[in-house]
Amino acid sequence: MNSDQLFKQIRSKKSFLCIGLDSEFEKLPRFLQSNDQPQFDFNQAIILATHQLAVAYKLNTAFYEARGTAGWKDMEDTVKFIRSLNKDIFIIVDAKRCDIGNSAEMYARTFLDNIGFDAVTVSPYMGSDSVQPFLKRPDKWAVILAVTSNKGADDFQLKKMHARDELLFETVIKTGISWGTRDNIMFVAGATRPEMLVRLRKFAPNHFLLIPGVGAQGGSLEEVSQYGINARCGTIVNVSRSVIFADNTEKFAETAHLKASELQEEMALILKDHKLI
Amino acid sequence: MNSDQLFKQIRSKKSFLCIGLDSEFEKLPRFLQSNDQPQFDFNQAIILATHQLAVAYKLNTAFYEARGTAGWKDMEDTVKFIRSLNKDIFIIVDAKRCDIGNSAEMYARTFLDNIGFDAVTVSPYMGSDSVQPFLKRPDKWAVILAVTSNKGADDFQLKKMHARDELLFETVIKTGISWGTRDNIMFVAGATRPEMLVRLRKFAPNHFLLIPGVGAQGGSLEEVSQYGINARCGTIVNVSRSVIFADNTEKFAETAHLKASELQEEMALILKDHKLI
Repeated sequence: MNSDQLFKQIRSKKSFLCIGLDSEFEKLPRFLQSNDQPQFDFNQAIILATHQLAVAYKLNTAFYEARGTAGWKDMEDTVKFIRSLNKDIFIIVDAKRCDIGNSAEMYARTFLDNIGFDAVTVSPYMGSDSVQPFLKRPDKWAVILAVTSNKGADDFQLKKMHARDELLFETVIKTGISWGTRDNIMFVAGATRPEMLVRLRKFAPNHFLLIPGVGAQGGSLEEVSQYGINARCGTIVNVSRSVIFADNTEKFAETAHLKASELQEEMALILKDHKLI
Repeated sequence: MNSDQLFKQIRSKKSFLCIGLDSEFEKLPRFLQSNDQPQFDFNQAIILATHQLAVAYKLNTAFYEARGTAGWKDMEDTVKFIRSLNKDIFIIVDAKRCDIGNSAEMYARTFLDNIGFDAVTVSPYMGSDSVQPFLKRPDKWAVILAVTSNKGADDFQLKKMHARDELLFETVIKTGISWGTRDNIMFVAGATRPEMLVRLRKFAPNHFLLIPGVGAQGGSLEEVSQYGINARCGTIVNVSRSVIFADNTEKFAETAHLKASELQEEMALILKDHKLI
């Protein structure tokens, strides 16, 4: 999927919502935990309830690898299921990989070719050749961590660099942009630091941003939209726990639908305000 | 395993060799590729041939995840096999993970608790709370990327920071040291940039370093030993492809033994020169 197709989907769904399937086994509704494929069954119900409200799903490998081979299979089957339902949904693997060329190429094959994700999140610390393998495939993306939503972002990302007092994450963006195009590079920008979105947009006015941190982590949808949205929306907001774990009863999928609907309605208004729909 | 036990093992084996089990399926000897567990069978043979010469093994998840659930099982079984053979060997998962607290905690459970690795490599970009979960378990380690062996290390790691012209990787070391002790934190320092080892040792004189890049990537064992070794050795040199893929015939394990022996003998001389044995 390229950025035009992504923008088209945003306009048609009136939504820039990404739902994070952080489907930690211990947090699944009790009655699902004894199923053969508990994470897959949970995801399937959430996806059926929300796929008309979301433009993207994001699966964090941490929560699947925690169950070993069984979790890995649930992750693979979730991607297959989303594809069978709707070919146009953008599917991100939140793997935050970071490795030398030949290892990065293996990750690219695994996630983009074999499983069929559209995008992989990557940590930029190892530089260009650790990201390049993810950019060689048509319509596939690298989502580069720029400024993250956690407290530890202070430790390095917001440290001043020598040159013109720019911050490390700004150097990451300036350099990262040169590695690809706005059709294969996105940046992660945490919702918990909206003031950094303003700085980020100076360096990357046209790229899509993947914005986590709205919901459980405390970021505000209104604020990130104000600073993040550009002429083609350019913003995908990820919400995980506050949608998928809003309700632990048999009505979990229904509640996830309600929570996603509220977000989608708020997003539709924002898109209208920005004259994008 | 704590650093004293690691040093004890180095002295008794006269070796600071780590063998990287980067057992990429396509590179395995042909006659193994049709086995049920090709990567496990390959690793088992390499381990049997080398475990008295190496103090550590390192498994890079990229090469196992590429085969999905089958590869994941081969990785788990490799760790079990090493443990059944020799309880004292240090086993590193080269996962280079990097995530917010709750996801990092899941990775720590997966690799340290469930599979039983001793150490996980982590990318520092997301700061303190992305590393802390790996430091909470007694005798378990986080191996923090400092200066890596690839070309892309220039992009950020060797960029000057504002404060006193220090480089980003030096900031990573200064900050990273405060997160734990020399019994639960190591740093990755690539053999391809020996001059950086000198700078690194100023900030981390006492910590263990995991040094990749000797062999296929072109680093020199002599040089990294000269700059890296401290009073308790403090250095583990990882060699992957040039040991495990030195020979593609039925004698692959025998050849791996020879290659590992050569390295061990060179290391024994170096340890003697440094009066460590």
